Amino acid sequence: MSFNTFGRLFRFTTWGESHGPALGATIDGVPPLLDLCEADIQIFLDERRPGQSKYTTQRREPDTVKILSGIFEGKTTGTPIQLMIENVDQRSKDYGNIAETYRPGHADFTYNAKYGIRDYRGGGRSSARETAARVAAGAVARKIIGDTIKISAGMVQMGNLHVNRDRMDWAEVRKNPLFCPDAIAADEWALELDAIRKSGSSIGAVIEVIATGVPAGWGAPVYGKLDADLAAALMSINAAKGVEIGAGMGAAALTGEENADEMRPGADGKPEFLSNNAGGILGGISSGQPIVARFAVKPTSSILTPRKSITADGEAIDVSTKGRHDPCVGIRAVPIAEAMMACVLADHMMLHRAQCG
Amino acid sequence: MSFNTFGRLFRFTTWGESHGPALGATIDGVPPLLDLCEADIQIFLDERRPGQSKYTTQRREPDTVKILSGIFEGKTTGTPIQLMIENVDQRSKDYGNIAETYRPGHADFTYNAKYGIRDYRGGGRSSARETAARVAAGAVARKIIGDTIKISAGMVQMGNLHVNRDRMDWAEVRKNPLFCPDAIAADEWALELDAIRKSGSSIGAVIEVIATGVPAGWGAPVYGKLDADLAAALMSINAAKGVEIGAGMGAAALTGEENADEMRPGADGKPEFLSNNAGGILGGISSGQPIVARFAVKPTSSILTPRKSITADGEAIDVSTKGRHDPCVGIRAVPIAEAMMACVLADHMMLHRAQCG
Amino acid sequence: MSFNTFGRLFRFTTWGESHGPALGATIDGVPPLLDLCEADIQIFLDERRPGQSKYTTQRREPDTVKILSGIFEGKTTGTPIQLMIENVDQRSKDYGNIAETYRPGHADFTYNAKYGIRDYRGGGRSSARETAARVAAGAVARKIIGDTIKISAGMVQMGNLHVNRDRMDWAEVRKNPLFCPDAIAADEWALELDAIRKSGSSIGAVIEVIATGVPAGWGAPVYGKLDADLAAALMSINAAKGVEIGAGMGAAALTGEENADEMRPGADGKPEFLSNNAGGILGGISSGQPIVARFAVKPTSSILTPRKSITADGEAIDVSTKGRHDPCVGIRAVPIAEAMMACVLADHMMLHRAQCG
Amino acid sequence: MSFNTFGRLFRFTTWGESHGPALGATIDGVPPLLDLCEADIQIFLDERRPGQSKYTTQRREPDTVKILSGIFEGKTTGTPIQLMIENVDQRSKDYGNIAETYRPGHADFTYNAKYGIRDYRGGGRSSARETAARVAAGAVARKIIGDTIKISAGMVQMGNLHVNRDRMDWAEVRKNPLFCPDAIAADEWALELDAIRKSGSSIGAVIEVIATGVPAGWGAPVYGKLDADLAAALMSINAAKGVEIGAGMGAAALTGEENADEMRPGADGKPEFLSNNAGGILGGISSGQPIVARFAVKPTSSILTPRKSITADGEAIDVSTKGRHDPCVGIRAVPIAEAMMACVLADHMMLHRAQCG
Repeated sequence: MSFNTFGRLFRFTTWGESHGPALGATIDGVPPLLDLCEADIQIFLDERRPGQSKYTTQRREPDTVKILSGIFEGKTTGTPIQLMIENVDQRSKDYGNIAETYRPGHADFTYNAKYGIRDYRGGGRSSARETAARVAAGAVARKIIGDTIKISAGMVQMGNLHVNRDRMDWAEVRKNPLFCPDAIAADEWALELDAIRKSGSSIGAVIEVIATGVPAGWGAPVYGKLDADLAAALMSINAAKGVEIGAGMGAAALTGEENADEMRPGADGKPEFLSNNAGGILGGISSGQPIVARFAVKPTSSILTPRKSITADGEAIDVSTKGRHDPCVGIRAVPIAEAMMACVLADHMMLHRAQCG
Repeated sequence: MSFNTFGRLFRFTTWGESHGPALGATIDGVPPLLDLCEADIQIFLDERRPGQSKYTTQRREPDTVKILSGIFEGKTTGTPIQLMIENVDQRSKDYGNIAETYRPGHADFTYNAKYGIRDYRGGGRSSARETAARVAAGAVARKIIGDTIKISAGMVQMGNLHVNRDRMDWAEVRKNPLFCPDAIAADEWALELDAIRKSGSSIGAVIEVIATGVPAGWGAPVYGKLDADLAAALMSINAAKGVEIGAGMGAAALTGEENADEMRPGADGKPEFLSNNAGGILGGISSGQPIVARFAVKPTSSILTPRKSITADGEAIDVSTKGRHDPCVGIRAVPIAEAMMACVLADHMMLHRAQCG
Repeated sequence: MSFNTFGRLFRFTTWGESHGPALGATIDGVPPLLDLCEADIQIFLDERRPGQSKYTTQRREPDTVKILSGIFEGKTTGTPIQLMIENVDQRSKDYGNIAETYRPGHADFTYNAKYGIRDYRGGGRSSARETAARVAAGAVARKIIGDTIKISAGMVQMGNLHVNRDRMDWAEVRKNPLFCPDAIAADEWALELDAIRKSGSSIGAVIEVIATGVPAGWGAPVYGKLDADLAAALMSINAAKGVEIGAGMGAAALTGEENADEMRPGADGKPEFLSNNAGGILGGISSGQPIVARFAVKPTSSILTPRKSITADGEAIDVSTKGRHDPCVGIRAVPIAEAMMACVLADHMMLHRAQCG
Repeated sequence: MSFNTFGRLFRFTTWGESHGPALGATIDGVPPLLDLCEADIQIFLDERRPGQSKYTTQRREPDTVKILSGIFEGKTTGTPIQLMIENVDQRSKDYGNIAETYRPGHADFTYNAKYGIRDYRGGGRSSARETAARVAAGAVARKIIGDTIKISAGMVQMGNLHVNRDRMDWAEVRKNPLFCPDAIAADEWALELDAIRKSGSSIGAVIEVIATGVPAGWGAPVYGKLDADLAAALMSINAAKGVEIGAGMGAAALTGEENADEMRPGADGKPEFLSNNAGGILGGISSGQPIVARFAVKPTSSILTPRKSITADGEAIDVSTKGRHDPCVGIRAVPIAEAMMACVLADHMMLHRAQCG
């Protein structure tokens, strides 16, 4: 987790700017002999791809991935895998006005403060386009962890609207454009989001991501904890402002009696847990229960209503964004969340195998 | 952030078990010529030390730190600093019953699942005693970042009780045994916590930690983000289940208009922000505003009320813990939070200096 | 230095196979605001490029580099720089016979032993084509360390023939096709190498690389030593079998009196060293003297004379290589050596700045 | 291999100065359930311990190791192992004269140039006492790689005297005080070294270290090569100036015909190599042949004959060292070499298991 590199053994470095010629992920440490072709990756990129509904930015990017290295005759060779996605729909002219203006809530000011320079076109490196590279890396990670582990994510809160947990069904997520696991909520939220979109505003969201089938024993004390890595992974996603594991922030309100997940002997000698406030992680190590994480994303800062800001020269200015933007970035965060979960698990699977055989 | 090592350039590895002969931190990468003596570290250890009020475990540990290397004539030399804290009050007999029993909510089961062995005495490596080493490392980190940066933390929620933000004053934190920045809340909570303690129960909490004086420009896209590192740092603290930056999970409920921190030209050419929903971090890079983070800790799982569990042999058993425990671990998490904030900032200060001069 | 990644702060990951669509380097950690364009890199790639004399393989590769990210308006932005070189002259058919045969002295057998699969086309990942990516990374590293530091390399031994140190002149290196700093030796060696080439044989070599202008103080005890990193960097070059710093292996034959580089007060307050057996590094830290390193490369294993070997199925076979190969890989190792020196120095410059300001 | 940390998965950080209270190694990543007690480590420390013959420094250090963490009931637990060796025979007064004087060939000047401060007592961090911590770490590494892998080292050259390879027997190493695998040479060298010692001079040496039983497949392209890591490991040893793998620097003088290690089908399906110029490593990956490395150490710079030098204030001075020193540091480098080989192999065993299962 250093600069633009994620992971220790399953490690990928993403590169590329929103309006440069291409972006991608350089993935190192992948085990050999895994079946991997471009279609295995494209399927996940297609889910994240913008412009698929009126609720996501209308930038038209095919996001076609090319594998440039590391695969031979359809299998991984153990050498670095280079995944490249060429940028097609760049329309730099749409963004020219941000060259000299710091958009509130964006990274324009901080990039300039750090580097003294920034590729302002479409947000450059800070654009959510970077997440396409994560999704590509996640597709490779899934090959490593295998089919036994199932990863699901969905939007469980939009603004002040919450899913009804009694109605939640992960199979619903891909059936509605809001990637919501509650079909009825999805319909209600769609109306709300339509209004937000038309008014040029935006709204925040919470995404939940779970992984089932993770064996007990992955993770490591005390700074390589599975939950610490998940927290970093999810917080690194654009717009993320909070991360929860299991009971999350709500754990603060619980008593010891309420919180402790009781155990009973299970059928297979493993413990059967009677609840999962821990979110599947105890002491930084997986317990065999589903890994449950959530993260909040702030509303897109690119809105129609003018906001007070300053120029790069320090002059006062009002900023209003008319470009193509997501009214709720939580939607497209769903496949990204799944990808990051897969990447964390792949890394920890390998770390565990290294140390414990 | 690998196994038991935290940080990239300012890097420390903590070692030691709750009931072993000693524990400590091996710190590498410290700049030379900083004034550092044991008293500089001891002052922070004394704050974290148990047994100082009836609200923390009555285990009596002097937590006296010894500097074994890296200091010469009162100054850092740039070589590794070894900080050792000997364990004194071990009372192993108090914990003997946990050798064969998995305590619900503890890491007993997962350590065994991972390693096939665990030092069960007092929780071994998973004990909160490890945090003494973090606090020691944090004292060194503060020397690196200097006095311009002020770090404050306090308990802002205990169970369902919240501080009144209008009354918050960080100077109050060290004046009450609950490390609460709201003096009136502290009194109220003390009564509540007394009752919880006497009933042998426990309660969760939220700790807020802020750093002022951090210049704009620290942090890095996209996996070395300042907020991603903070999230990992805080989530790695024992019992942490959620981490927030700025508006945190609450950002989900905001509209773009509400969330965007507007800017106006400041007196010194830097922007003046009109709000701080970002918690001082935009695009993973500090904005010059105060860095604001919060994390929730779950209630101690060691409670008097029997909980269903299993033995290492897979038999059903009920577990009740009579030992010396904190009714609210949030209290002692306060100096730990400050330490981790200092460590993250020290690392990023050096990373920024390396890349940007 | 992990898997396919080199460096800590100035870090690059090379990717790509000899006969895949492309290869390249993903470079992270580069300081912002450095002038950098493709021509700055191409000039070094052109030096390494094969087919420029009869002494290097006749594979015709233009080795044209494309910058895909990290540069904006001619300057580095501090974000990852992706350098891509497309493979053009692949002629896979030339190498088809190595699919089932382990060539003696090549990595065919060990790649298969490790991964159970290998991209055998042209040596795949183990091909010296990977060094094009190093040379590209080295060009970026040079921008970081600046013009004050001068790096020179040359072939100082070919087979049993040595340069005459009295005649050595680094300016000669680019004037002869053997990259030899001794013009007279270059002529003599050319005749010898011609004979070797025509006989289908090959010969080993020693390359010396020096860097002047490196300030005292770069490097770090005790595993991040400048010489330890140089040793790893040079030993990682294809065919390298030995690495020396200063007096090198010859230091074994010296007495303490002979070896100790005496010092006298210099004009500028810095010490003036009366000799440089240390090769500019003491205790892992640069002394301000020229950094002097050498490494030996073995002769190309691809020779016309049949050698005993086995097939992937374990059958005995005799192998003779008729393809396009370098009779002395030491020649093309010269720009690679310079590149690796630059990369090590760039990394240590940034590490030093991080710790010591 | 960062600052004072060695390794990626099997990682240790050494700490401590020559004349501080203690030194040691913090070892992380050790697999659980390995039998390990202090005696397992002490046996190797005793071999390295000074003062055991007239050929090593007469400083009397018991070098008694204490395990402070990571072991429970005689077995590793997978958590960090802290090994501490207290310094006993410090005699700081012997070294007081070096506070203001830069000894030629020592790191006095470079430490000061880097850090602006140094613990000059006995060389501080740059003292060869640090290698006690390596030897301790190596003892743990041997537990990881197991008994199948045999590591042997010995002094094969002292000054201009070479062992007779026909007489070499690794079993001889521990039978003579020069740790030489050639008994007859050992006797001859002893006379020579006696004269050197009495004259207050010193002499360089070459140490060879081999590991048999390493399976084919350990190591990784292209910067995590087994030989690149060995080169860094051996070059990081105090006084090392050159490192060779297999034919080493001599590979430069070979033709392709001479160098290529021919293969024939072996009894067990593995190849039988007819020579080992590769030193057991091809393309950075072990071939199953013995791993063979050598490194040269320079003569101790602490000699009786006055050498020209300067003071910290830049004044000319002549330096003569009367203290307790090794006339040939190559002797005590032998157990260190074995330890570093073990550490590299342990790390690569775990890396290989992580990636390739």
